[in-house]
Amino acid sequence: MSETAHYGRLLGLGLGPGDPELITLKALRLLKATRHVATFAKAGRQGHAERIITPHLEASHNIVRLEYPVTTEIDVNAKAYKIALRDFYEQSCAQLAALMRAGQDVALVCEGDPLFYGSFMHLFTRLRAEFVCEIVPGIAGMSGAWSAAQMPMTWGDDIMTIIPGTLNADAIVARLQQADAAVLMKIGRNFAKVRQAIIDAGRFDDAIYVERGTMAGEIIQPLAQYSGETPPYFSLILIPGNGRRP
Amino acid sequence: MSETAHYGRLLGLGLGPGDPELITLKALRLLKATRHVATFAKAGRQGHAERIITPHLEASHNIVRLEYPVTTEIDVNAKAYKIALRDFYEQSCAQLAALMRAGQDVALVCEGDPLFYGSFMHLFTRLRAEFVCEIVPGIAGMSGAWSAAQMPMTWGDDIMTIIPGTLNADAIVARLQQADAAVLMKIGRNFAKVRQAIIDAGRFDDAIYVERGTMAGEIIQPLAQYSGETPPYFSLILIPGNGRRP
Repeated sequence: MSETAHYGRLLGLGLGPGDPELITLKALRLLKATRHVATFAKAGRQGHAERIITPHLEASHNIVRLEYPVTTEIDVNAKAYKIALRDFYEQSCAQLAALMRAGQDVALVCEGDPLFYGSFMHLFTRLRAEFVCEIVPGIAGMSGAWSAAQMPMTWGDDIMTIIPGTLNADAIVARLQQADAAVLMKIGRNFAKVRQAIIDAGRFDDAIYVERGTMAGEIIQPLAQYSGETPPYFSLILIPGNGRRP
Repeated sequence: MSETAHYGRLLGLGLGPGDPELITLKALRLLKATRHVATFAKAGRQGHAERIITPHLEASHNIVRLEYPVTTEIDVNAKAYKIALRDFYEQSCAQLAALMRAGQDVALVCEGDPLFYGSFMHLFTRLRAEFVCEIVPGIAGMSGAWSAAQMPMTWGDDIMTIIPGTLNADAIVARLQQADAAVLMKIGRNFAKVRQAIIDAGRFDDAIYVERGTMAGEIIQPLAQYSGETPPYFSLILIPGNGRRP
């Protein structure tokens, strides 16, 4: 029997968009059954993932906080940002790998869906060759947002395009002009640019702003009525499709 | 007090991609608490939604099967198809509205996510003016598929485009050429066209075919190795993004 046969597994558990009740039965079962629970976190602050899992934890659980390096002062395109994040992911992998080599399963819990813009992917791609992995999908933040807004998004032949607000304005306008339905992600400090791109693409009147969808303090407004200037990073803008409907 | 204050509510409950354990705590709570449970179905055949909810039902539940008209012999673009479906949606609405006007809540359960290419939307848009609605998101089929395939889909600035296979070949090629990540939905009898469009767009080597993702009989294969000719309607093809990663 090979050495790795004794290794623990890496479980990637999607927790959903924020409402603690939007966790799945499967993620909850695996969370309860796994002693070592790892979570990405900011130093000194409880994140959504921790808030969602805390009511389900018992004294026997060991929480492994993977704390992001402080990067808010560094441009995301700067080399220093990439190096800081790369080092963080590699250190996180080393920490989880030590547990798994000692035969322990590790559940890494993830806001939203693990494989959709998730930090989980950076550890998974580094660890998958050595460890058996299981991934449990979660409801994506955008799905929580359009449900909270009660907005049907895609009908019939509609194409949906999911556009990060980190792209440049011309790219956002071009994609919006071709989209039926669209979701603009990662708004935050890109808000003014994204808002103008939506106007330039002629989709301003349809757009809905959603902040903290499915969570306490949820804000849902037509974009035209939203007066904030720097929404939280995880805010979204939704533009519904209008396709074939009998 | 207005008459409608006594009306029941319409609950749209997403059930997720097929694995019965991928239902959320919230959808399960509301399912158990609601006597009248409606489900879209094919005549004489148990669908995924019914299979998922059956273990949770009690004798007191009243199942309302909304049976699609037989339309497989009619082209989806034909007027007869539109009329048959429109009549079906209107009759379904009348059936649920009668219960709600009598003060009863109705839970309409939906495979995947209710507001993402969901039949639920056709009832919801007709009923929302008269009845209070609550919508619980579900994990979309595509999310179940990429989790089952263990395929990270979107990184950093990646744009994801979701493309119905019902579109014409040129449209599919054009959208694929601009996509980072892509999901091709509604494959079924569009398979040969979609496969050729993926080749023409230069994305064939990356594409993964997923049939019955998260369910019994799941098939996950590189598209280049898949030898079937007419996959089931709900099969998907996934093309991962390859964006910024530290």
